[in-house]
Amino acid sequence: MPRGFFLTFEGLDGSGKTTQLRRLATWLEGRGEPMVITRQPGGTRLGDKVRAVLLDSRTEKIAPMAELGLMFSDRAQCLDEVIRPALDAGKIVLCDRYTDSTEAYQGGGRELGSEVVRSMHAVMCGGLDPDLTILLLPDFDRSLARARRRNDRSAEEGKDEGRFESEDERFYRRVFDKYREIAERDALRVVVIDGDAGIEAIHERIVKVTAERLRLRS
Amino acid sequence: MPRGFFLTFEGLDGSGKTTQLRRLATWLEGRGEPMVITRQPGGTRLGDKVRAVLLDSRTEKIAPMAELGLMFSDRAQCLDEVIRPALDAGKIVLCDRYTDSTEAYQGGGRELGSEVVRSMHAVMCGGLDPDLTILLLPDFDRSLARARRRNDRSAEEGKDEGRFESEDERFYRRVFDKYREIAERDALRVVVIDGDAGIEAIHERIVKVTAERLRLRS
Repeated sequence: MPRGFFLTFEGLDGSGKTTQLRRLATWLEGRGEPMVITRQPGGTRLGDKVRAVLLDSRTEKIAPMAELGLMFSDRAQCLDEVIRPALDAGKIVLCDRYTDSTEAYQGGGRELGSEVVRSMHAVMCGGLDPDLTILLLPDFDRSLARARRRNDRSAEEGKDEGRFESEDERFYRRVFDKYREIAERDALRVVVIDGDAGIEAIHERIVKVTAERLRLRS
Repeated sequence: MPRGFFLTFEGLDGSGKTTQLRRLATWLEGRGEPMVITRQPGGTRLGDKVRAVLLDSRTEKIAPMAELGLMFSDRAQCLDEVIRPALDAGKIVLCDRYTDSTEAYQGGGRELGSEVVRSMHAVMCGGLDPDLTILLLPDFDRSLARARRRNDRSAEEGKDEGRFESEDERFYRRVFDKYREIAERDALRVVVIDGDAGIEAIHERIVKVTAERLRLRS
């Protein structure tokens, strides 16, 4: 049985990564590839509980380090329940956010630094890195505007999932910069795609990269 | 302003540590010592949510590493909200369970090992260790019998706090052995007290040790 293939999608809120993940999943399904889709935080029953705690804006104040622990707790459960079993069964795993998100948001955005996040990743994830990471990085200002519109809409609808979106612009900038830093550091694993290229063009680019990497695997 | 004093209580469920913590608090109060009492997991609003997830027996299956992350997440919040501010204000902090519990239960009981737990402690707690730890270690067999009775009673009353208590005897033995290992390793910090000595005798012993250590501080 060949080991599966672990593919993560990364990017700022509003970058279109969830749309693109779904598009790629449809394409892979068309090819008959055995596949599992998951997301972080969330993706397991425990993860949904943790996600609820994390995203609940009414939660008074979560210490950055406590937030970090919750993120990795969710991830450890997802690895145990979903990702490792699927990879061991030779499947492709598509995951919406993984450790890069934590490094960008908690390490960069909340200024905990990369080293703390990478140490946690080593201990709690056994250092399991994706085979390929698609990082959608649109123009910073456009992305910020989209995230704000989404946040306003959530607030109007009485939804409470706007915790990250309600952070200030400097936070957003730090996340953005950290993503670029990760992409430079892990240039082989992380493929950066221009998030302003249009849904169809981005999809084609992702399909091309994924197909190449899957061929390399077999 | 002198730095405060960080005192933790450790032991198996049913060891009497919570009773002894309350007794010592009363004694300290009588001396007019500024003091804060907390516990882990729990002790903050976030912590209570995390505690509920942890102790809910209905939670299908928590991966040991996810459990570890939740424990430290709770701890990080408690450090940030309660422990560090109190110590900075020169207060005595009495805490019911701290990292030793995680090392004993998750490191020993769930066999994650001490190294993983100590690494997490270094990252998430900045390595903050107690000034003094009171470890109540009664006879193993008597302690196990008490824990089982408590668990049965909880189940009869329809409470769901019996997750740890419902683990098997081998788990309990591993926790017990890990506590002894910690006490040997950190002999200066950890004072082991015979948990079968009777409530009054144990209280007197704890008062004596605490008074000595507080004098050393000033």
